[in-house]
Amino acid sequence: MADPRFFRVAGPFTVAEIARRSGAAVAGAGEAQRILRDVAPLDAAGPDDLTFLDNRKYVTAFRETRAGAAFVQSALAAEAPPGMTLLVTEQPYRAYALAAQAFYPESPPAPGIAASAAIDPTARLGDGAAIEAYAVIGAQVEIGKRCRIGANSVIGPGCVLGDDVRVGANVSISHSLVGARVRLYPGVRLGQDGFGFAMDPAGFVKVPQLGRVIIEDDVEIGANTTIDRGAGPDTVIGAGTMIDNLVQIGHNVQVGRGCVLIAQSGIAGSTRLGDHVIIAAQGGVTGHLTIGSGARIGAQAGVMRDVAPGESVVGAPAVPVKEFFRQVATVQRLSRKKGG
Amino acid sequence: MADPRFFRVAGPFTVAEIARRSGAAVAGAGEAQRILRDVAPLDAAGPDDLTFLDNRKYVTAFRETRAGAAFVQSALAAEAPPGMTLLVTEQPYRAYALAAQAFYPESPPAPGIAASAAIDPTARLGDGAAIEAYAVIGAQVEIGKRCRIGANSVIGPGCVLGDDVRVGANVSISHSLVGARVRLYPGVRLGQDGFGFAMDPAGFVKVPQLGRVIIEDDVEIGANTTIDRGAGPDTVIGAGTMIDNLVQIGHNVQVGRGCVLIAQSGIAGSTRLGDHVIIAAQGGVTGHLTIGSGARIGAQAGVMRDVAPGESVVGAPAVPVKEFFRQVATVQRLSRKKGG
Amino acid sequence: MADPRFFRVAGPFTVAEIARRSGAAVAGAGEAQRILRDVAPLDAAGPDDLTFLDNRKYVTAFRETRAGAAFVQSALAAEAPPGMTLLVTEQPYRAYALAAQAFYPESPPAPGIAASAAIDPTARLGDGAAIEAYAVIGAQVEIGKRCRIGANSVIGPGCVLGDDVRVGANVSISHSLVGARVRLYPGVRLGQDGFGFAMDPAGFVKVPQLGRVIIEDDVEIGANTTIDRGAGPDTVIGAGTMIDNLVQIGHNVQVGRGCVLIAQSGIAGSTRLGDHVIIAAQGGVTGHLTIGSGARIGAQAGVMRDVAPGESVVGAPAVPVKEFFRQVATVQRLSRKKGG
Repeated sequence: MADPRFFRVAGPFTVAEIARRSGAAVAGAGEAQRILRDVAPLDAAGPDDLTFLDNRKYVTAFRETRAGAAFVQSALAAEAPPGMTLLVTEQPYRAYALAAQAFYPESPPAPGIAASAAIDPTARLGDGAAIEAYAVIGAQVEIGKRCRIGANSVIGPGCVLGDDVRVGANVSISHSLVGARVRLYPGVRLGQDGFGFAMDPAGFVKVPQLGRVIIEDDVEIGANTTIDRGAGPDTVIGAGTMIDNLVQIGHNVQVGRGCVLIAQSGIAGSTRLGDHVIIAAQGGVTGHLTIGSGARIGAQAGVMRDVAPGESVVGAPAVPVKEFFRQVATVQRLSRKKGG
Repeated sequence: MADPRFFRVAGPFTVAEIARRSGAAVAGAGEAQRILRDVAPLDAAGPDDLTFLDNRKYVTAFRETRAGAAFVQSALAAEAPPGMTLLVTEQPYRAYALAAQAFYPESPPAPGIAASAAIDPTARLGDGAAIEAYAVIGAQVEIGKRCRIGANSVIGPGCVLGDDVRVGANVSISHSLVGARVRLYPGVRLGQDGFGFAMDPAGFVKVPQLGRVIIEDDVEIGANTTIDRGAGPDTVIGAGTMIDNLVQIGHNVQVGRGCVLIAQSGIAGSTRLGDHVIIAAQGGVTGHLTIGSGARIGAQAGVMRDVAPGESVVGAPAVPVKEFFRQVATVQRLSRKKGG
Repeated sequence: MADPRFFRVAGPFTVAEIARRSGAAVAGAGEAQRILRDVAPLDAAGPDDLTFLDNRKYVTAFRETRAGAAFVQSALAAEAPPGMTLLVTEQPYRAYALAAQAFYPESPPAPGIAASAAIDPTARLGDGAAIEAYAVIGAQVEIGKRCRIGANSVIGPGCVLGDDVRVGANVSISHSLVGARVRLYPGVRLGQDGFGFAMDPAGFVKVPQLGRVIIEDDVEIGANTTIDRGAGPDTVIGAGTMIDNLVQIGHNVQVGRGCVLIAQSGIAGSTRLGDHVIIAAQGGVTGHLTIGSGARIGAQAGVMRDVAPGESVVGAPAVPVKEFFRQVATVQRLSRKKGG
C-alpha cells in the first residue's frame, strides 16, 4: 500500500462500486461484491488490491500478479491469472486513474494563514485560502477561494489567482493572471521578463516586456518550468494544458487547449500552438511558427517550420515521422554497405 | 495598452521626440507634432499608438494595423496603411526598444530593508538598497548601491554585488563576485559546486571546487539558470552577455563579452567562448573547447570540436551550416529514391 | 590560492605527506620534505603550489607552469619543467582530489537552529543539525545527525533524511526518503507529483501519484534538478550516483548504484538503469526501457530501445558509437560527392 507517512487510503470499495466509478465491466472470476482495499502495481499487489495492465511490456508481470482484481483490455483478458476479478475496459489507465482517485481522494488544503506569511495589506484572499510559512504576497494581489500558496513562494504585485489554485513551495510569480484549479509545482517561474533585446554595436538595448502571462483554467505546470511574460502581446497557456518539468516557454507564445508539453521541451518566442498539441521530451520549436491542432512533435525534435494540424514530426530539422524513419533506415543501409 | 496592474505608462510624446530618441526619420503621413500615447503590437495598436514592423512574416498585420505610427525599414515603408506616420530606420526593433523605454521607464527599486530579512551584522549594504522579505544575506557580504534583493533569495557568505544589481525572487548565490547592473531572474543558482569528482573503483572521489563565479557588468541571467563555480580557475561570464532561462554553465567555463546564450543551452566544463558568440536554444558545447569570437552555434547543435571565430555551425556533431543543410538534402534525396 | 572570502587553506604539507595520502610516487626533482602550501591550476601555480596534469590538451601549460610539484602520469613526466617535484600516478585527477581535500577539508555545518526556521513540533532533528533561516520543516519529518538544511528550503511532512545530509538553499522536498551523506544543491525539487494523467476525450484524468522518491546513501543531486515521485512504485536513485544540474527524472525511474547523469539529461518514466551507467549532457532516455550496467549514453543521444550492459550508444535514435560515426562519415562523404 502507499506509504502512510505520505498517503491515507479511503475505502474499502466493492468491485461493483469500482466498476460503477470507472465504467469498466466485471468479468473473469467476477464477484461484484468482492472487497478491494487498495490499488497497487502489478508486482506488489495482493488479493485485496486492484491493479491494471496498460502496456504489453508488462504482460508477464500481469500473468504473475497476486492482485485480486485488475483493469485490463478485453484483448489481454485471457492473460489474467486464475482467480483474478477482471474489470474490462478499453481504457485501463483511465479507469485506474478514477479508481485511484477513489482510494486516495485529494484532501483540500487546510485553511489558514501562517503568521509568518508576508501579505500586503492591499492583497485580497478568498475564503478557505491556505497560505504557508514565509509566503510573500504583494500589493493588490487577488487570490481565489481555497487556494494553497506553498511555503517560501512569492507572488508579485497585481497578480490574480482563480479559485482552487495550488502553488507549490519556492514558486515565483509576477505579471500573471492565473485561472481556476491551476497547479504550479515547486520552483515554477511565471512572468519574468522575456528574453528581449535589440542588437546594437554599442551593446544590447533592452526591450521592455509589457505583456503578461495568462494561465487558463485547469492547467498544470511542472517543477522548475519557466514561462516568460509577453513583450507586448501576452504569453497564453490554454485551458487544460499539461506542462511537465523544466520546460521553457518564451515570450508571446500561445499554447492552445489540452496540449501536453513533456519534460525539458521548449517553445521559442511568438510561436502559436493549436489545441491538443503534444511536444515530447526535449523537443524544441523555434520562434514565430504555427503548430496546428493535434500535431505531435517527437522527442528531441527540432521544429524549424510550421506544422500542419494532426501532423506528426520528429528529427532535427523535424520531418514527418515516416520520412524520418525512412531517412534513418537509408543512412543505416548506406553506412553498412560502406562498412562492408 | 499595457495592463495597469503591472505597468505605468509615461508620455505622451510627439513623433518628433520619439524620432529624436530613436534616431528614426519621420516619413509617410509624417506629422512631427502628432501625439503618441503608448506603444502596442501591430494587431492591438490604435491611432494614438506607436508600433513596429521587424519581421516580414507580419507584413499583412502591418498593412491592416490601426496604429498611428510605426518604426519600419525603408524597404517595407510602402506596405504601410494610409494615414500612418512612418518612423523609418534600418533597425526598427532597436528603435522600438528605445521608444518603449521612454513610455515605460524602469522604476528604481524602492529603498528599504524588510524587517523580516535575515542580514548578517557583518554584511555591508550600499545606499538605496532594497532588501525584500525573507531574503537571507550572509557574513561579510557586500551589496552595492541601489541593489534590489528579491524575496526569499539567499546570498551566501563573502559574496560581492556591484551597484544597481537586481536579484529576483528565490535566487541562490554563493562563492560569487557580481558586477554592476547585473540582473538575476528568479530561481538562478550561482556558485554551487561544479560537477567534479574523480572516478575510482571504490566509488567517486569528490574534487573540492575552489574557484568562484565571476559575473562581469551588465550581464542578464535567466530564470532557473545554473552556473557552477570554478574548480580552481573561476567560472567567468563576460560583460554584457545575455543568458536566457534554464541554461547550464559548467565549472571553469569562460564566456566572453556580449555573448547570447539562449534557453536550455549548455556549456560543459572548461570551455572558453570568445566575444559575441551566440548559442541557440538547446545547443550544447562539450568540455575543454575553444569557441572563437562571433561564432554562432545553432539550435540543438552538439559541438564536439573547436569552432573558429565567425564560424556558424549546427547539427550533432556540429558542422558548418552549409554542410549541414547539404547533408540534410542528401539524406532526403537518397531516402526518397529508396522509397520510390 | 583560493579566495579567502570563500575558502580557508589547511596545511602546509610535505611532498611525502601528500604522496602518502594520494598514493603517488615521488620523482623528478623529488624532495620528499619539500613544503607545499596550496593547490593551484597549472597557469596560476607558484613554487609552493601543487598542481596536476590530467589532460594532454594542457601539456603546454604543464611545460610552462611554475608549480613546485605536480601529479602526472609516468608517460607525461618527461614534459615537466626543470626543478618540478613530480608525484607520479596513473590517476592524477584522483590524486589531486585527495590532495585538495587535505588542503581544503570540508568544514562540518555549524550546529544550530535558526530562530526563524519554521519547524513542526512533531519533527525530529538529530544531534548537531544545522537549520538555516526560514527553512520550513513539516510534521513528522525525521532529520539525521549533523544535517544541514539550507535557508528557505522546504521539507514536506513525513520526509526522512539520514545522517550528514546537506540540503542547499531554496530546495523543495516532499514524499521522499533520503539516505546518509546525500547532497542536494540549491533549487533541487524532490518528490512532486509525476506527470501522470490518462487521456480522455473530456480532458485529462489525473492519476494519483502514490509512490515516493528514495535517495540512497552518498548521492549528489545538482542545482535545479527535478525528480518526481513514483506513481505507485517508487522512484529510486541508487547509492553513490552523481546527478548534475537541470536533470529530469520521471516517475518510477530506477537508477542503479554509481551512475553519472550529466547536466540537462533526462530519463522518462519507468525506465530502469543498472549500475555505473553514464548519461552524458542533454541525453534523453524514453520511458519503460532497461539500460544495462556500465552502459554509456552519449551527449544528446536519444535512446528509444533497451541498451545492453556495457554498450556505448549515441545519436538520435541512439545506435552503437562505432555505427554512429560510420553513419556520420557516410553522410559527409555522400553529401560532398553530391556537392562536387
